[in-house]
Amino acid sequence: MRMRKKRNLIPRMERCSELLAEQPEEYAGRWLESFPACSRLFVEIGCGKGRFTVETAELHPDVLFVAVERVNDAMVIAMERALDSHLQNVRFISGDAACLTQFFGMYEVDRIYINFCDPWPGKKHEKRRLTAPSFLHIYRSLLKKGADIHFKTDNAALFAYSIEQFVNCGFRLSELTRDLHQSGVASVMTDYEERFCQLGTPINRCVAIK
Amino acid sequence: MRMRKKRNLIPRMERCSELLAEQPEEYAGRWLESFPACSRLFVEIGCGKGRFTVETAELHPDVLFVAVERVNDAMVIAMERALDSHLQNVRFISGDAACLTQFFGMYEVDRIYINFCDPWPGKKHEKRRLTAPSFLHIYRSLLKKGADIHFKTDNAALFAYSIEQFVNCGFRLSELTRDLHQSGVASVMTDYEERFCQLGTPINRCVAIK
Repeated sequence: MRMRKKRNLIPRMERCSELLAEQPEEYAGRWLESFPACSRLFVEIGCGKGRFTVETAELHPDVLFVAVERVNDAMVIAMERALDSHLQNVRFISGDAACLTQFFGMYEVDRIYINFCDPWPGKKHEKRRLTAPSFLHIYRSLLKKGADIHFKTDNAALFAYSIEQFVNCGFRLSELTRDLHQSGVASVMTDYEERFCQLGTPINRCVAIK
Repeated sequence: MRMRKKRNLIPRMERCSELLAEQPEEYAGRWLESFPACSRLFVEIGCGKGRFTVETAELHPDVLFVAVERVNDAMVIAMERALDSHLQNVRFISGDAACLTQFFGMYEVDRIYINFCDPWPGKKHEKRRLTAPSFLHIYRSLLKKGADIHFKTDNAALFAYSIEQFVNCGFRLSELTRDLHQSGVASVMTDYEERFCQLGTPINRCVAIK
């Protein structure tokens, strides 16, 4: 996500510090122990400005929702939204998806969300796509058996690529659509998604089950 | 398949009549009983000129290979190829995929092949695609549990469409590739496939498991 540099980034993040997991590796493997009010752990990779994060966490008060984002200028907005909504079941990690195994234990995660990630269209940058095989193997190691990845993108080429990787990494596909809003599936939208929706761009979605 | 009208179609088909199942409904539900040398039943939908049919049947002498084709001008070439190869384990049905339940019993089929079917690109003709939901429900009813559909196409849009239908009809996907020959999977080619291959057109393939 390319963003204008936020003024006052540091004081703004400090105001939300209770929602930031500064040493996430200390929680790895025992997130739910640390949040006894929650019975499931959902992880969002690349939460951006957090509209989806906040609305999903509000819908599921029994879920601990951990949002990972490497762009602090975006994440601070997500954190402010969560703080203003008085959410107790959301935490943020400022970090990279490649480091997920430091943040979570094996077989600890009930669901991973990947919404509108960067398509990295060139073959040269394939490895950076959040659905590249190297990432999928990391997600598999974190997910419980039967747990799932919820994936949405407006990019048809990235979707076709991702389907291939999911299948070949042993995931079972479900709820696959190449036009989410036409197929009438209601769910929480991201800011991006709302814009695409208004423009009539079809949204691709699938669930990949371990 | 649009083809020039074959001269002498009737005498040519008569020469191969031993390979034609003229009353396929008499075999429905007991194909393998009627071919005791075979232990599995594979069905090809739209065999065209039969290169794939013949080469696959040669590779699997234990398999009864039933090829369905509604264009007799193409099928006669497939029948002649099978006759000239002295194949005992191939039969042909001159008929339409929409009538498959008349030709086969429930849970009787071990594998269905669909190779390079007509993409019917317009939304108006979606129902004619051999991977439209109405066809997939027919295939499901004929396939044994754990049996599979092997699907190949050069048409990326048809492939994306088909993936969506397979998943939503409850099939589990496997061996999915958007560039079969680059991914190094060796298998029997159709005549079409060889031509696409020479042109560098990528071939999409997947296996959909019931």
